[in-house]
Order: sequence, then structure tokens, then C-alpha cells
Amino acid sequence: MTQLIWAREGRITEAMRQVAETEGYTPEEIRDKIAAGVAIIPINKGRSIPARGIGEGLKTKINANIGTSPSHFNLEEELEKLKAAVDAGADAVMDLSTGGDLKRVLQTVLNNSPIPVGTVPVYRVIGELLCQGKGTAEMTADALFGEIENQAKMGVDFVTVHCGVIQSTVKTLAGCERVMGMVSRGGAIMAEWMAIHKEENPLYAQFDRLLDMCVEYDLTLSLGDGLRPGAIHDAEDRAQLSEMMILGELAKRARKAGVQVMIEGPGHVPLHRIAGDVKTQKRLCDGAPYYVLGPLPTDVAPGYDHLVSAIGGAIAAASGVDFLCYVTPAEHLHLPSIQDVHTGVIASRIAAHIGDLEKNLPGAHDWDLNMSKARRDFDWEKMFQLAIDPELARSRRNQSEDKERDVCTMCGDMCALKSYTRATEAEEK
Amino acid sequence: MTQLIWAREGRITEAMRQVAETEGYTPEEIRDKIAAGVAIIPINKGRSIPARGIGEGLKTKINANIGTSPSHFNLEEELEKLKAAVDAGADAVMDLSTGGDLKRVLQTVLNNSPIPVGTVPVYRVIGELLCQGKGTAEMTADALFGEIENQAKMGVDFVTVHCGVIQSTVKTLAGCERVMGMVSRGGAIMAEWMAIHKEENPLYAQFDRLLDMCVEYDLTLSLGDGLRPGAIHDAEDRAQLSEMMILGELAKRARKAGVQVMIEGPGHVPLHRIAGDVKTQKRLCDGAPYYVLGPLPTDVAPGYDHLVSAIGGAIAAASGVDFLCYVTPAEHLHLPSIQDVHTGVIASRIAAHIGDLEKNLPGAHDWDLNMSKARRDFDWEKMFQLAIDPELARSRRNQSEDKERDVCTMCGDMCALKSYTRATEAEEK
Repeated sequence: MTQLIWAREGRITEAMRQVAETEGYTPEEIRDKIAAGVAIIPINKGRSIPARGIGEGLKTKINANIGTSPSHFNLEEELEKLKAAVDAGADAVMDLSTGGDLKRVLQTVLNNSPIPVGTVPVYRVIGELLCQGKGTAEMTADALFGEIENQAKMGVDFVTVHCGVIQSTVKTLAGCERVMGMVSRGGAIMAEWMAIHKEENPLYAQFDRLLDMCVEYDLTLSLGDGLRPGAIHDAEDRAQLSEMMILGELAKRARKAGVQVMIEGPGHVPLHRIAGDVKTQKRLCDGAPYYVLGPLPTDVAPGYDHLVSAIGGAIAAASGVDFLCYVTPAEHLHLPSIQDVHTGVIASRIAAHIGDLEKNLPGAHDWDLNMSKARRDFDWEKMFQLAIDPELARSRRNQSEDKERDVCTMCGDMCALKSYTRATEAEEK
Repeated sequence: MTQLIWAREGRITEAMRQVAETEGYTPEEIRDKIAAGVAIIPINKGRSIPARGIGEGLKTKINANIGTSPSHFNLEEELEKLKAAVDAGADAVMDLSTGGDLKRVLQTVLNNSPIPVGTVPVYRVIGELLCQGKGTAEMTADALFGEIENQAKMGVDFVTVHCGVIQSTVKTLAGCERVMGMVSRGGAIMAEWMAIHKEENPLYAQFDRLLDMCVEYDLTLSLGDGLRPGAIHDAEDRAQLSEMMILGELAKRARKAGVQVMIEGPGHVPLHRIAGDVKTQKRLCDGAPYYVLGPLPTDVAPGYDHLVSAIGGAIAAASGVDFLCYVTPAEHLHLPSIQDVHTGVIASRIAAHIGDLEKNLPGAHDWDLNMSKARRDFDWEKMFQLAIDPELARSRRNQSEDKERDVCTMCGDMCALKSYTRATEAEEK
């Protein structure tokens, strides 16, 4: 049984009740969104964490990618990254580890995460082959499905599977004049495997096998966009759209089987294409929740891609994106540090909140209004409490000379709010 | 004589020639933009710095505000801020000092700035009154005009004057249900003065006196938006629009007198109102260059307002804004530090470049394309050179374990670009 099957049968689960309460809806409204497939609750049947909903009419959610790599592996640091992500307000975390004892890392993340955990199972399959001096050629379909099932048993809440990287879409890609080709690790692995074995992608060819596992564990599918653009030059070409059409078909099959599903999106996208991309996804995938990485509307700012991603993410969320995968300041340079995780989550939360303002979600405008009232009243304590990163706001203010006064060092006594108050008082005389 | 008068007479100045060269236009095209008032070259006739153009079809420019305050005053630090702004790529700097020996600070900034320098002259008038234990009530119109003339003589390239804060617009403001009232320092000072003296704003009442000074020194006017919103709740109300209409009338009078003029804009604006605000300004002010602060599409992120401002600034620039005033991470908390100046300029430059991509300006797309090609080719040196902040990108990469390899610590050997290359090679076999 899955949340989707229960919803379709009219039943309201505890998870739906929790989501209803945090989002300001009735349990029936949440149930109907789940039943229609426009919202999901990624929670493995073996997990006991607070349920979080992703989808239409719900608060825009944030995912933080953590994980080791072959040249940077430290389990303690991963746990600190997990804590940093949760503390900064992430709604989900993906363990994308590719270095060290991958099963142990994932088990530790699952044991310690109070938020849904996602993975890309093919990473572990390939990661272990690489450790043995082997490569993608030696991967078998059974090993891949076996790993997905293992992870479902361990309690993983959602998995990214690159089912849309198939013979036809890869051929379409070959005919596109891309600068960057493929930039999705999982997608490129599947393409390499298919090219070597001259076979169809097993995740596509045996999609029903995947669906059976998902139903058993209520494992949510995140249909990966292996053909996403890695440069704004490459955005929204035939390759990207041909894959999205396949993902739309697969999403339909998943829902029919009772499997919760969301769709992944780009990536590098020019500003004026972001809203259109979201509308196209919603159309082609029948309103399935959209989970985007970025998007990044320029390629030239390594070191600031969290900021670039917040620009694209705000517009994406305002246009209907449901779930933002964060991008950290380390993107395009190296594996993120603990501080990068914190900064990345906050940047994405800013984008998500701007999206929520535009979606006119319950409570979104009150947050800004209350902050502005606190500002007007020089109520610094309240400003800190309301700040998206209270600790940072407080510590910055406390480093300044005017920390004990009501004004700040920007204007001191030449404060506009005070001048205007005097102006209105003089006016009334 | 001013650049505008020369342009209108058909003459091409050295400044126009310089702008034409850096922007990729013919000198005649630049002259015609200046003559039409849709572009300006803020350069005092007494200054010898490279000319920079601001306006339609030209690269989106960035201003960095620096300056002392009564509780934070250090001339050396101001010079370092100036250097940080210039090094990070600012196109103009405003000395907004309100603490210490203001004339000396301004003279030092002018002597050391290779980019146009702007000021808000009323700050010095009030700053010196505050030092004498006096206040706004003691300001005289003659002192204000005298200060503007002093600064024009010193070589200031552009001044913000709050000419639109007049009896009628302040009355409109009083009827609006704002949370924040007035948040413009200069605007609030004028409102307070008017309320105390029961007189019209002298900058409006004696606007021709201002224009005469501007013609003499080719001082560019930046018509300040004293009634700009200080909370997204307050954006685009009748007060803001009534002031913009006045500024449009004054811009027309300025151009008629041969004075170069731009219009200042907000501030705190919800995402969906940004594009409309720009279009309204262009309509009401006959295409005069638009110079906005931010805009900030949410109020809740003190400590990250550079990022919030980059979100709003990218959309504003994409919608036609010509000149972005940076916002630093210190906004709403304290006076910016040297590091804040650097971060603020880079954040604004990212927004400006995204705007330039959307404006489809010469060379804008090539930058991203070249970066993506360098990424595809694992050409790290070229990536650093092309990065918007080369030093940061280089130093971050150099801190990582894989700095000597072609790959990065994010993926190591599980690199999508490498997998896809192997895939295409296998495909060809």
C-alpha cells in the first residue's frame, strides 16, 4: 500500500493528517491532492518521521544534497552536513555518496535524519564497481534493481531513477548542437551502459519491476532528467523535451500502479525560459510535482551559484515548481563543506519563500508583514526571530557599534523612519 | 555645456566615443541615445575619468554605495571600500558619508575614484547641522543649493535630489496604509523640513536653479524616489506612483534645459510587480534611464539581502532597468564592511549580467558560452579567468583535494562529462 493508493480509496492516513496540519488544509483536501497525483508525501512505509508534502498548493520545499566522494570521505562530516541542512530548514536530504562504505553512510543518514531521505541508487552500484577497478560495463540490470530494493528495505523515502535516458532520447541528444552534452551523472552512466551493451535502459524496459518495489515500500519515484542542460546555451532543446515527454508517460504509469511520483528538472536555463519550462512540465506530466535543480540563469558565477540558483529558483517556484534542490557556493568547484550546506539551504529557502509569496500561500505574506512591522518599531529581537537565518542576523548586528541603540550604523541619527515620524508630528501641529 | 546639449547639436564628444567603443556601438548611435535622453554619461566637466554610459541598449551598470556614518568613521577604510568596489567591477560609486569631515571624505573619494562618483548633497547639510547640535529645522534652501554647487565644483558626477517629495505627494502618502512610511533618508529629511516650515520642497520649487548648476558643470541629476516602498506590502501604492509622475515631469524639464537625468526606483517590491514597475517608469519618464535599489522581493532575509536583491535586480534588469544600486549583506543591519562591498558588487553584477543576457546585448551570451566550453574541456585556468570573481573561484578550487586533477571533488571519476564521452565513443563503435 502507498499514500496514493490509500488516498484513491478515500482513506485519510496519519501522514495526510500531519501534512494537512502543517500546510493549513483539511485532511480531505490533502487526500484529494495525493489521489490526483498533484502532491506526494515521500515517506517509506518503514520510516517514522514527520510527514512532509510536496506539490500543488503546498509550501515550496527544499532538498539539500549531501554525501561523500572518492576523494573526500568522512562520516562525521556527513552527519554534520545533515545536521546543518536540517537546522537551516531543509525539507529533505539526498545522500549522494560515492566514496567510502556507502551502505554504512546511507544507514547512518537514515538513522539520523528527521526529514525524508532520497538517493540515486546507481551511484552505489557504480561506486562499488569503481572500487573494484571495474566500470559501467560490468553493471547488470539485476544489480541495479537489487540495489534499489536494498535501499527501499533500508527505509529510503525517494529515489532518483534515470528512466528517460533511452535509445530514442539519447539519439535525439546526439542530433542536438549542445556545448555540454550530458551533465547528469546517473543519466550519463545509463547512456554509457546502453552504448556498451547495445540494450535499452533497464529502468525503462523493466519499469513495472521498479513499480512493484515502490508499491511494496511506498518508495516515491523521482524521475531524473538525465538529459538536462548543463549550460544555458543547451536549455530546452529537443533532447530535453523528448525526455520530459517520456517522463510524463512514465509518471502516468506510476500513478496508475499507485506509485507516488515527481519529475526532475534543470539545471541551466535562461531567465526567460524558466516559467515556460515549468508550464510545459506541468502540462506534459499531468500536474506531477516538479523538482528542479537551480535553475541557474547564467553559467559565469562559480562560487556564487547558490545566489544564481536563488534567482532561477524564485522564478521557478513562482511559476509553480514544488520542490527546489539547493545549489551551494561550491557548485562547479568542489564537494560542498558544512558551511556551504548551510548557505545553500538558506539561499533556496529564500527562493522558495518568494515563490510562496507569489503562490499566495497561507501565512506567506504575514511573515514579511511582521518583519516590516518589527523594523518600523525598531524591535531588533523580533527582527532576529523572524529572520530566515536568525543567528546570522543577530551576530552581524552585534558586531556593529550601534548594537545597544535602536538605530543602526547605516544611518545612525539620520534615520528615515525617525525623520518621517517627526514630519508627521510636525504636520499635525 | 553638457553631453546632452552637445549630442542634441549633433556633436560627438570624446566621452561619447569612449562609450561607443566599450559598448559596441558607433559614436553616432551613442550620440543619438544621449540626445534622446534614453542614455546618459554621468561625467562632471571637471573630471578626467573614462566615460561610462547608462541607458537603453547599454550594458546594465552597477553602483556601490560607500561612506561613513556618525558611529563608524575611518577614511582609510572608505578608501579600501572604494578600491573593493572598483576591483569587483562597480561602474559608479556613491559617497553617502554622514560621519566625520564630510568634505574631506568626498574630496578623497573623488581624487581616488576612476569611476563616476555620486552623492546625496542633503546628507552633508544635515550631517553638519547634527554635529552642531542642530537639526533639519535649521536647514535653509540656500544652504542646500550652496552645497550642491560646492559638490558640483568639486567634481561630483551625479547627485540624488529628492525633488518629488512635495506637498501633494506627501499628502498622498499620508492617505496610504503603509507599514513603513518613508524609508528614504533624503526624502524623509525633505518631508520633515516641509512639515516644519510649511513650505514647498525648494528642490522642486526652485528646480530651475538646480538645472542652471547642472548645465554649468554637466552634473547629472538622479531624481530620488523619496516615497519608495520599504516593505513589499507598501509597493506601488498611490504615493509611489504619484511621485513617479512628478519625476517624469521634472525629467522632461531637465532634458529641455540640457541636463542629463535618470530616475531612481525601489526598493521592496513583490516579484510579480517588478517588470510592471519598470515598464511604468519608462512610460511615465519618457524612457529616462532607470536606477533601482534592489529591488528586494522579500523582507525576511536580513544578512542575505544581496542575494534577495540579485533576484529582484535580475528581473528588473531583464525588464529594462539600466542601473542597479547594489545591496550588501549588511543591509538592514549595519554599515557595510569592505568584504560586504565586494560581495554586494559581485551579487549585483550577476543580476546585471542576467539582465544583459535577456537584453541580448553584444557579447553577453559569448561569456556564458565560453565558460561552458571551458567546463566541457576541463580547462580550469580558463574557468577561473572567465569567472565573475576569478580569485574566489580559484581559491575555492585550490582548497579541494582534487585540485591537481582535471575532475573535481564533487564527482571524481564518476564524472558525467567523462561517462558521456565514453558513451558516444562506444556508440560510434
